Amino acid sequence: MRFGDDALGARLNALLEPGELDEVVVASDLVVQAAYMEWRRATVQRTGGDQHVRYIVGHPGAVAILAIDATSDAAVTPDSEMLFVRQFRAPVGQLLLEVPAGTLDLQTGIPEEPLLAAKRELEEETGLRAATWRHLQTFFTAPGFTSERMELFLALGLSEAGPDARTPDEDEALEAVRLTITEAAEAVRRGAIIDAKSLIAIAAAERLVTR
Amino acid sequence: MRFGDDALGARLNALLEPGELDEVVVASDLVVQAAYMEWRRATVQRTGGDQHVRYIVGHPGAVAILAIDATSDAAVTPDSEMLFVRQFRAPVGQLLLEVPAGTLDLQTGIPEEPLLAAKRELEEETGLRAATWRHLQTFFTAPGFTSERMELFLALGLSEAGPDARTPDEDEALEAVRLTITEAAEAVRRGAIIDAKSLIAIAAAERLVTR
Repeated sequence: MRFGDDALGARLNALLEPGELDEVVVASDLVVQAAYMEWRRATVQRTGGDQHVRYIVGHPGAVAILAIDATSDAAVTPDSEMLFVRQFRAPVGQLLLEVPAGTLDLQTGIPEEPLLAAKRELEEETGLRAATWRHLQTFFTAPGFTSERMELFLALGLSEAGPDARTPDEDEALEAVRLTITEAAEAVRRGAIIDAKSLIAIAAAERLVTR
Repeated sequence: MRFGDDALGARLNALLEPGELDEVVVASDLVVQAAYMEWRRATVQRTGGDQHVRYIVGHPGAVAILAIDATSDAAVTPDSEMLFVRQFRAPVGQLLLEVPAGTLDLQTGIPEEPLLAAKRELEEETGLRAATWRHLQTFFTAPGFTSERMELFLALGLSEAGPDARTPDEDEALEAVRLTITEAAEAVRRGAIIDAKSLIAIAAAERLVTR
């Protein structure tokens, strides 16, 4: 009972069960690999169907952090501050205000454990550590063309990592910024925060407040 | 006053103003182009800074549709039905339940107008047309590595497109599914809907209900 054993669960289980829509990869050729990504040309086939070519951007996975300056869930109010980073994003050619996030390291060829990556990224990007961590949500950023899977964590009980804090990668330039949850939600409405993971993190913060 | 002329607006304007974090692209080489995407190797430089290489997946842009079976905003209730499509996604190797969406066509080399793309995709993927369309939100799906920009539209006043309806692309196999807004939000909580655009669309639907 993957998605529950009530009527909705039964329906979701049936809808998401493997079946005649499934595609099997019959060939997957690496076209190019660079940095942490790879571009693959996959040939896929459905049962009894024709073969089709799909170009896929292979990605090791990523984490995003909803870091709120509060000691516990119960202490989160609309005036609690969330952490953001201000960073220029070359792929979209503009400066963005985003929740802290990063790609899983692949130092031994195996993706880093997501919670460790989240702790590392929060410290590198904001200079902060958190006393309490909780996994909030898993999502695919763009499943039509990339395997990127993102894990969103809640970080509470923030404190300065101090002089021995890890620092950003050499090619990253960013600045930590604080906005209250109310301000962040308003920044979304005004179009000042416009990346998917940040919209999802801010919606999660609003749910913490109303709960 | 891009983001407003109150205190928050002034702060957001200052935070998102171009400045010393900006990167200028000093070289951009096309590594490979396939289907609607291109993989570029860009060399970027900040004012007075070192040069860095960034790999960028160029994307023409996309649309997603929050299609609700209600005649107007005022008629939207928690029991109103939202349209989803059930589709196997080779990049993530699984069947997903997502809001209707698609990439902008590039038939003349110029990306299709987003609203026209949204109307086309809704009809192709669900067989429905909508009497009322409204732009809800713009977001970048994964600005760390791709230029993909997604426009989310609200579609109300749904009706069957009939026998002359446009049909999915030859390599797409999908089925339309209806869930109420309450069921969709619960499907997110249970991890049955797990792609970024659908999470954002469902959060938008919940805001329509509580407004």
